[in-house]
Amino acid sequence: MRREPLLMIPGPTEVSTQALLAMAKPVVSHRDEDFSAFFKQLTEKAKQVFQTQNDLFILAASGTGGVEAAVANLTRKGDKVVVPVFGTFSDRVAEAVKRYGGEVIRIEIPLGEGPTASLIEKTLEKHPDTKVVYIVYNETSTGVTVRELPQIAKIAHKFDAVVVADAISILGGDELPVDPWEIDVCVTGAQKCLATPPGIALVSVSDRAWRLIEREGLSTFYFDLSRYKKFFDERGQTPFTPAIPLLFALDIALTEILEEGLENRIRRHRLCAQAIYSAVEAWGMTPFAKEPFRSNTVIAVKYPPNFDDAKFRGLLKRKYRIAVAGGIGITKGMVFRIGCMGNIGPQDVVLTIAAMEAVLYEIGYLKEVGKGLAAAVRKLASL
Amino acid sequence: MRREPLLMIPGPTEVSTQALLAMAKPVVSHRDEDFSAFFKQLTEKAKQVFQTQNDLFILAASGTGGVEAAVANLTRKGDKVVVPVFGTFSDRVAEAVKRYGGEVIRIEIPLGEGPTASLIEKTLEKHPDTKVVYIVYNETSTGVTVRELPQIAKIAHKFDAVVVADAISILGGDELPVDPWEIDVCVTGAQKCLATPPGIALVSVSDRAWRLIEREGLSTFYFDLSRYKKFFDERGQTPFTPAIPLLFALDIALTEILEEGLENRIRRHRLCAQAIYSAVEAWGMTPFAKEPFRSNTVIAVKYPPNFDDAKFRGLLKRKYRIAVAGGIGITKGMVFRIGCMGNIGPQDVVLTIAAMEAVLYEIGYLKEVGKGLAAAVRKLASL
Repeated sequence: MRREPLLMIPGPTEVSTQALLAMAKPVVSHRDEDFSAFFKQLTEKAKQVFQTQNDLFILAASGTGGVEAAVANLTRKGDKVVVPVFGTFSDRVAEAVKRYGGEVIRIEIPLGEGPTASLIEKTLEKHPDTKVVYIVYNETSTGVTVRELPQIAKIAHKFDAVVVADAISILGGDELPVDPWEIDVCVTGAQKCLATPPGIALVSVSDRAWRLIEREGLSTFYFDLSRYKKFFDERGQTPFTPAIPLLFALDIALTEILEEGLENRIRRHRLCAQAIYSAVEAWGMTPFAKEPFRSNTVIAVKYPPNFDDAKFRGLLKRKYRIAVAGGIGITKGMVFRIGCMGNIGPQDVVLTIAAMEAVLYEIGYLKEVGKGLAAAVRKLASL
Repeated sequence: MRREPLLMIPGPTEVSTQALLAMAKPVVSHRDEDFSAFFKQLTEKAKQVFQTQNDLFILAASGTGGVEAAVANLTRKGDKVVVPVFGTFSDRVAEAVKRYGGEVIRIEIPLGEGPTASLIEKTLEKHPDTKVVYIVYNETSTGVTVRELPQIAKIAHKFDAVVVADAISILGGDELPVDPWEIDVCVTGAQKCLATPPGIALVSVSDRAWRLIEREGLSTFYFDLSRYKKFFDERGQTPFTPAIPLLFALDIALTEILEEGLENRIRRHRLCAQAIYSAVEAWGMTPFAKEPFRSNTVIAVKYPPNFDDAKFRGLLKRKYRIAVAGGIGITKGMVFRIGCMGNIGPQDVVLTIAAMEAVLYEIGYLKEVGKGLAAAVRKLASL
């Protein structure tokens, strides 16, 4: 059996054959005017998916590199920065801000929940001199989505703070209209809901954010966004060599996204996620995230008592060729996580549910097979 | 005519069809044990090409990202850092060190030359408390190779300083045995002599370098090499999602390098470069780099007086589909540059020389055609 496992993990995700093949095109010069034309239309396409008219940069880096770019450009020594921490990735943001000299105002949030607008408002009332509010819009480690992100942005702006959304595991899979929601810096990675192979990060930057970025004291050179802006505006290029084959793949993936339509795409993600949540509950299991924070792109499920995760996920991968993730960082050993991202559709959902039921039966957790699939199928009926 | 231009630029370079097609493979999970096995053997292969037993990391970043990783990890506020500046890329290193708080001891070197061991020795005698000496082994902007790199490393070590070699545009194309030459940190990018598409950087780290890296006060999170080491040693993985398709391509490219043999490969680069230099001189033009600094991977040529670069390079690209580079940064408007990197062989050299002669004839610079080709062919006869 030579089949690569179906990626039902929270990234990297399944990439279309068209996007994969695009990478096999000959490499071109990134200082060529043909490249500039390609890169400008690629950036425009990405802006459509971000729903923004802000600047947008495509970096040769993984998603965390995109977060580093945001942090390094926005933070100066002693800046007050609010970071609600509710999982591994928000904790990483807090750590990165600290390393760049920011004074982190951590808001500790119970696991399985996310920050609310009122919580951010209270924090900003105590710290009205806050420069930046970082929101991990989708906490990949816990399967939590911050449902009040647009309200949080409005509150932050009332206090004249810049809002950064780490949208790595969600942009392209759930609502995130960057301009209407007033997100100043939005970061994503290619390898999640954009269904592009890993290795590039996308970062949008508003005028309000530029005011913080353009202060003295920038330490990064590689992620210097002002330099990216200069090169893009003057030549439609990047200051350093871009990851060209990944841009070819991204171009195809963005075209596929726009052809499907953002609204359809978000609806597909939501219904596929609901189908998975329904199956999980039919099996007598409990999602890790509490309502209303349940993510439509990462479904985290609490391990039942005495549950052998290695056996469960191992069998699922070896016998049925389906990869799902365990916990990460703070949720390690507490959950398994199903990615519902990018190109995942009804076929992948029924396959995953069917195979999971088979494995849950084989390891003795389920006494009968079919209930999860029935629950999932009822949800998928409306797609 | 739909042919992509032949890349005779200093990167990105021509990638073999096998390496391009490797990127079209389905994406896999970077947290899978199969991936760890792949990534460990890939790293071992890269170490063979580096000729090192030091740690070696593969980052999702372009070459400048690799330099940033070196600078960010090695520099702490107030550290004395020696940087000989002899072109755009060494100037960039100086700028990056400054941004990370280092006190840069700049050594200004005449354009077309590179630092010598005695110059570094004199500088270190004046600044014996220097922590790091950065050498851009091959200055891509001027076509200069630092021929005394191994002697420089020995001198730096006498003063207990760490030596970093920015080998982005040379590793895999000219001598650079990292361990015998005692290079503490060696940085390269995939898209030059390694003949891999752009988007990944490779960085080796010696024990001596680790002692500087492991001090307090690291500011980067994304490029935190200690974190890379921990993930590699414990699981054969990267801390953040790697650029998976580019690793597939690198794997093929490294295999092709080892099959050719490093010695043969270096000889091929040297003879192809000599062929190009000979043709250039037969045309009555002058290489920008002085002897003995002439690079075997980037041939920079002074513009003859009243020479229309745009017409020359434009015609070469449009009519003959061959891309060569102009100057960059400090050499902008002063030179054109031919990349002689990676997979470039006799076929590419005779084609480039023949087409250049045709264009030089067409624009009226040459009165007769053939002398350059004859000179090149005489050199290629010994390959």
